[in-house]
Amino acid sequence: MNNSIRLKSRPEGIPTLENFEFVEVDKPKASEGQVLLKTKYVSVDPYLRGRMRDEKSYITPFELDKPLQSGIIAEVVESHISDFKKGDFVNGMLEWKQFQTSNGKGLQKVDSSKAPLSAYLGVLGLTGITAYVGLLKIGEPKEGETVLVSGASGAVGSVVGQLAKIKGCKVVGIAGSDEKIKLLQNTFGFDAGINYKTTNQMRKAIKETCPNGVDVYFDNVGGEILDAAMANMNRFGRVVNCGAISLYNETEQPTGPRLETSLVKKSLKMQGFIARDYQDEFKEIVPQLATWLNDNKLTYEETIVEGFENIPRAFIDLFEGKNKGKMVVKV
Amino acid sequence: MNNSIRLKSRPEGIPTLENFEFVEVDKPKASEGQVLLKTKYVSVDPYLRGRMRDEKSYITPFELDKPLQSGIIAEVVESHISDFKKGDFVNGMLEWKQFQTSNGKGLQKVDSSKAPLSAYLGVLGLTGITAYVGLLKIGEPKEGETVLVSGASGAVGSVVGQLAKIKGCKVVGIAGSDEKIKLLQNTFGFDAGINYKTTNQMRKAIKETCPNGVDVYFDNVGGEILDAAMANMNRFGRVVNCGAISLYNETEQPTGPRLETSLVKKSLKMQGFIARDYQDEFKEIVPQLATWLNDNKLTYEETIVEGFENIPRAFIDLFEGKNKGKMVVKV
Repeated sequence: MNNSIRLKSRPEGIPTLENFEFVEVDKPKASEGQVLLKTKYVSVDPYLRGRMRDEKSYITPFELDKPLQSGIIAEVVESHISDFKKGDFVNGMLEWKQFQTSNGKGLQKVDSSKAPLSAYLGVLGLTGITAYVGLLKIGEPKEGETVLVSGASGAVGSVVGQLAKIKGCKVVGIAGSDEKIKLLQNTFGFDAGINYKTTNQMRKAIKETCPNGVDVYFDNVGGEILDAAMANMNRFGRVVNCGAISLYNETEQPTGPRLETSLVKKSLKMQGFIARDYQDEFKEIVPQLATWLNDNKLTYEETIVEGFENIPRAFIDLFEGKNKGKMVVKV
Repeated sequence: MNNSIRLKSRPEGIPTLENFEFVEVDKPKASEGQVLLKTKYVSVDPYLRGRMRDEKSYITPFELDKPLQSGIIAEVVESHISDFKKGDFVNGMLEWKQFQTSNGKGLQKVDSSKAPLSAYLGVLGLTGITAYVGLLKIGEPKEGETVLVSGASGAVGSVVGQLAKIKGCKVVGIAGSDEKIKLLQNTFGFDAGINYKTTNQMRKAIKETCPNGVDVYFDNVGGEILDAAMANMNRFGRVVNCGAISLYNETEQPTGPRLETSLVKKSLKMQGFIARDYQDEFKEIVPQLATWLNDNKLTYEETIVEGFENIPRAFIDLFEGKNKGKMVVKV
């Protein structure tokens, strides 16, 4: 019994369950130079939506009728590679299958005694690294500055806010429910929050919560929230373009106010990135994040959905904002 | 006899002669601690359009019924300051008057034996510095990369292209007439040019002239040309937002395709700036530009209009693209 999940059709707009197909495949055998892996935790992330489009990007698109992939924590159940032994846990970009083989390339061992396994998909994985790189390498916040974060209660946003507090900034988060705003303030130490779903005038709401203007805007959503933030940027402000979840499901080219005049007038920087651009620095970043985690300077929320069969649903729910923090499926 | 030019009304759209008013004022006398200056050359620049709006920017707006200002080369005709003597030429942000006094603050002496006076308003002035800072500090072109420049035959653009050639890049310029395209190739050493007025498909035209994609786009114009450039940016590309002349006369908030998804997908940087952000480095930048000028690695075009009374007309003509290179009025 080995279930796999394939991309059946490319979504138009928000993905639906019909875009996915469950296919029973043989449980593979590991040959020489291979390990047999059993999937334990599967990461679902907004950026996967981009790979479902058939267009050029920093990462190749998913193919139709082939298994989808994401960050996965798996257990080594059989090993013919000296670096790995039975019972090891590994992190890698793997297929949505219950069992699969690997030649070991791109697999990192993770230590389940140092942090829960799921944390390696979140705060100690690409999520935490994304927050670190975007805020600290691109946003470069200085003590006393104001940092605004959208998608603030999400996996990346909640880490961004905490890192900004570690750096001595004032931190304001934007999220989509009063419950999430409370979470930002009570659990993650944000100074203030804005519920964009109940706020008619985002531009004004940002102005009121950031009376000294915004120095760093960490953007996970794009669209009109970005526009409202732009109107509040201080001179020499930095906009970190981490994601644009509000646009991922658009079927036509979205339009909005042109930004070039603001960029010139205020000497602003906007910069997009993906964590992998900084791969050489991961070995310094992850231990730093682990230290802050163990010092209780960093905490995280995760939404764990149970069951391999619920991976597509969990992914779709990201676009409804049903997750608090990192969304992970436990298999 | 001392003529002055005041802002009579704020322009809607492209400025007209009606927005300006000539007012005869007394010729002032220089008292202790002052110099009396006679205007020789007046710089007219697109950015002045921004100061005609009554809105917050990096520089205070012009006031109605007050003289306009810009970069001016003036002759000291009387001095009561030890640093300046009669016959010196100075460069400063001065009023549109034939004669005026100054306490000397912000005035730099210029050496008419090293370069023509008008060059100090152009290639050796803020124009050249703007090109230097934008291209080299923000664009950071590497040898062999492709640099695309809009407004390429203008004062800043023509220097940008030459600096990019000095750095060993392939350089493509965008301008608005076949004559200007010839100028780019024959005088300024650009590798290729695109006449945007006779090209229907800018995106395709850029793709054809930049087959390896665009690594640095130096943008003087904004709007649809920026959109077309964005579609051709390489991963890790840098967009230098120097100006947006295509939008300066818009009366409504201009809209266009949203850029945030491209920024993320291609790890792009867009950064606005003004030369003054790098004021501390002027003392290294200007001699470097002068060296390249004297080594014939840098050349410039200027459009010199004669007569104080023609300053408003020369300014308006900028928006019609009537200048080649730096537009200067000789008084």
